[in-house]
Amino acid sequence: MTIRVAIAGARGKMGQEAVHTVMKNTDLELVAALDYKEIGATLAETGLFPEGYTVPVFTDLNKLHAQTRPDVLVDLTSPESVYTHTKTALELKIRPVVGTTGFSDEELEELAQLAKDTKVGCIIAPNFAVGAVLMMKFAEQAAKYLPDVEIIEMHHDQKLDAPSGTAMKTAHLISAHRPVHEQGHVREKETLPGARGANYDGMRIHSVRLPGLVAHQQVLLGGEGQLLTVRHDSFNRGSFMSGIVLSINTVMETEELIYGLEHIIR
Amino acid sequence: MTIRVAIAGARGKMGQEAVHTVMKNTDLELVAALDYKEIGATLAETGLFPEGYTVPVFTDLNKLHAQTRPDVLVDLTSPESVYTHTKTALELKIRPVVGTTGFSDEELEELAQLAKDTKVGCIIAPNFAVGAVLMMKFAEQAAKYLPDVEIIEMHHDQKLDAPSGTAMKTAHLISAHRPVHEQGHVREKETLPGARGANYDGMRIHSVRLPGLVAHQQVLLGGEGQLLTVRHDSFNRGSFMSGIVLSINTVMETEELIYGLEHIIR
Amino acid sequence: MTIRVAIAGARGKMGQEAVHTVMKNTDLELVAALDYKEIGATLAETGLFPEGYTVPVFTDLNKLHAQTRPDVLVDLTSPESVYTHTKTALELKIRPVVGTTGFSDEELEELAQLAKDTKVGCIIAPNFAVGAVLMMKFAEQAAKYLPDVEIIEMHHDQKLDAPSGTAMKTAHLISAHRPVHEQGHVREKETLPGARGANYDGMRIHSVRLPGLVAHQQVLLGGEGQLLTVRHDSFNRGSFMSGIVLSINTVMETEELIYGLEHIIR
Amino acid sequence: MTIRVAIAGARGKMGQEAVHTVMKNTDLELVAALDYKEIGATLAETGLFPEGYTVPVFTDLNKLHAQTRPDVLVDLTSPESVYTHTKTALELKIRPVVGTTGFSDEELEELAQLAKDTKVGCIIAPNFAVGAVLMMKFAEQAAKYLPDVEIIEMHHDQKLDAPSGTAMKTAHLISAHRPVHEQGHVREKETLPGARGANYDGMRIHSVRLPGLVAHQQVLLGGEGQLLTVRHDSFNRGSFMSGIVLSINTVMETEELIYGLEHIIR
Repeated sequence: MTIRVAIAGARGKMGQEAVHTVMKNTDLELVAALDYKEIGATLAETGLFPEGYTVPVFTDLNKLHAQTRPDVLVDLTSPESVYTHTKTALELKIRPVVGTTGFSDEELEELAQLAKDTKVGCIIAPNFAVGAVLMMKFAEQAAKYLPDVEIIEMHHDQKLDAPSGTAMKTAHLISAHRPVHEQGHVREKETLPGARGANYDGMRIHSVRLPGLVAHQQVLLGGEGQLLTVRHDSFNRGSFMSGIVLSINTVMETEELIYGLEHIIR
Repeated sequence: MTIRVAIAGARGKMGQEAVHTVMKNTDLELVAALDYKEIGATLAETGLFPEGYTVPVFTDLNKLHAQTRPDVLVDLTSPESVYTHTKTALELKIRPVVGTTGFSDEELEELAQLAKDTKVGCIIAPNFAVGAVLMMKFAEQAAKYLPDVEIIEMHHDQKLDAPSGTAMKTAHLISAHRPVHEQGHVREKETLPGARGANYDGMRIHSVRLPGLVAHQQVLLGGEGQLLTVRHDSFNRGSFMSGIVLSINTVMETEELIYGLEHIIR
Repeated sequence: MTIRVAIAGARGKMGQEAVHTVMKNTDLELVAALDYKEIGATLAETGLFPEGYTVPVFTDLNKLHAQTRPDVLVDLTSPESVYTHTKTALELKIRPVVGTTGFSDEELEELAQLAKDTKVGCIIAPNFAVGAVLMMKFAEQAAKYLPDVEIIEMHHDQKLDAPSGTAMKTAHLISAHRPVHEQGHVREKETLPGARGANYDGMRIHSVRLPGLVAHQQVLLGGEGQLLTVRHDSFNRGSFMSGIVLSINTVMETEELIYGLEHIIR
Repeated sequence: MTIRVAIAGARGKMGQEAVHTVMKNTDLELVAALDYKEIGATLAETGLFPEGYTVPVFTDLNKLHAQTRPDVLVDLTSPESVYTHTKTALELKIRPVVGTTGFSDEELEELAQLAKDTKVGCIIAPNFAVGAVLMMKFAEQAAKYLPDVEIIEMHHDQKLDAPSGTAMKTAHLISAHRPVHEQGHVREKETLPGARGANYDGMRIHSVRLPGLVAHQQVLLGGEGQLLTVRHDSFNRGSFMSGIVLSINTVMETEELIYGLEHIIR
């Protein structure tokens, strides 16, 4: 049976990709788009999509629901609107698949309770790249056996913060499975400050920034005579699409809120 | 409590490493060595170890057991002797940790039954490199979500067979979790034969042979916009030692035969 | 002094990138576009560029020259038209920078003679990616000292031919500096055919095809105890732009035909 | 014609490798060893070499020269003795190949003058790994075209200093060909200090330290849409042997002092 999908934030960069992904997938049907302002009656009328994209655009989720009865709402909008969207969707028994961070702990708890009460599945994922989530899981597992870990993350040189959010999350996950210990020689010395990278619970994180790079990370785990490397390269936004499709399929079979793709990947 | 360890095959390359590893580990005590011929009363007398290595060498496992009461027998000998060693050890309630392949299916079944009957743990592992075993497990897990896989294994140019045993085993494990499909374009064409590598159930395996290399393998899993790579580098025999130590510790807590390090790594 | 640039093939994928690159570069001025059919009076009118792109579009190179006096013609069109364009440009003393292969040897010789006679510089480059050209040069140099070489090229799985043109060219360049010898063990054996890759003068080439990949190549050179790797990753068409800008600057200072970016990179 | 070779420092780790390398090379003949103390009449008598190694050991270079007439003296001793050895060798018209750093500028100048006056070739190389020297040369060349550079060097966790000497030398060489500019975004921010590595003239250097690693370095050069990587892996001391053999051959054809393998590799 085809899953009926609505997309909020269809005009954004990620949203446009998601529209194409759902349109091309024969198991999914795109039935509506949700926008915060009046921009055209159909996706085609927004000028961002081919003429054949005659999917209707709504500015009100209730009206959208009444007319198109979606099974799933994929929400790729901004943190401001995403909480209201998700709450309304759950009440309307539309299953939300949400790709925005920025929920407060209270909001997450409230939504989890609402999903439980209504028995409507809901998936919220800060990172839809299946490969990145697998990398983090593997690094976490491996650190039990090879507890000496360094992380090298590499991004384009327009990125402002270092280390990346993914590197910080990876280190955080690993630290739960790894005895805290300072790595490197106890008398090791930096002749140029910063050479040994950032220190996270004794692990080291290195951030490379170069033009041309997109988003890459490798986790290196060393042991006597060996090195295990888990690496993820994200070349473009397409890397998030497999996670969105996986979430749409999974949310149909769940009756509660799941936070993080790592809980639906086994 | 210290675990009392005996080693069979102590004069071999792997055996020598194992002797040093057990000697240096404060949780383990090396109590005896088992050799197939009279070569000296102690390890030191073989001329292969420092003078301080006064561990006695036996040529008979029963005598060894009577005089030194080991908890564990680490067996790094050849396929010819390993079956008898393992059977005798189990009967003597010494827990075997065996690093040799070359058991027949019947022998494995018999030993498994014997371990079960005597409630004496036994671990047999064709590959003691923890990192290599993790690589195989991760590749297997990831292929569920990213079913397009190629394997590149790289070894020194004195290796005779291609692909390597590890690459074949990895492909075999992955194929259990991955829909069989031919990779690459349906109309893809090799202008030089062999360019696309070996075909294993539609996956491709590439074997690189160069002087200088030791033993390396990477598994590449591609998906829309992304690439996940799991890589293991084995730089020297030391890579097997962590698996031997892990097995010595684990065999003390098990009451049956375990075949393959992958079943004690979680 | 600003260099006045005209672009032929501005509506193609590579052409559009080139238009943006020249527009953004303060040392270059885009003065005209050359098209094979009437499509609009300016680039903006083609509907493919922003409104501010008021650069005039011509269908005749003589008229283009008379009205806009370009120093350089960047030609990113198809093999059919590129020979005529280049010949006419040289006669008009416009310096051609050509990114299309597909010249016959006779045509190349004729154009070289014409460039020499008119003392008008001309650069023809089958590959404008500076990084890829450097990779090939380095591989060629290194093979003198480390003559055991394998090439791994990796592309998206929609590519039809294997090995890639760049891999073949790299192997060809290396073979000029490397004693022909079969690599691997003399008694090496493929248990799965193709594992050892394609054989080019004794070197091995491996072609990986996976969804998600773009265009990547690594050249591995092994020697006793060591490995030297030269790798190029091309993430998008932007990789060609640095070579086009370099060629525009270089063609202004030359008085003959140069074939291949490798001859202007030192 | 066979080149007659003497080795100083034959009992050291590097010296032992060099002895084996020369013994195995059919174009070279090992005629003598030079030691600072009386240890045996032949290499075999030192107990470090097989019985067949009957090469005589001397403690005086003049006596060694009188009795064995070597063409080349390979010096792998400590900085204390190497200056005297080299000077005496040049005076005796033995061509020195020296693998120790630790000459003062004055000493180097004096030896260079002496080599010139006597027309006796002399090669002094701080790093004999041909692959590492090639890596540095290539990085230097490439930085002219791709001026955004980061260096990642990786060593075993017993190394005391970071960055490594090779990384510092690479950065120094690159900085001569690269406009000084700070890399990364001007408003980039480290949320964990050290994440962006050490700053060398605006380039970034990252030092990874893990058990299992040997000595590895990669230089990453980024440009629009592309990444060029030059990587060297040194797996064991064997990596230095190709440079020693190359130097022995080259020193026979030169009549002056050459400092650095980079000047004999083209």
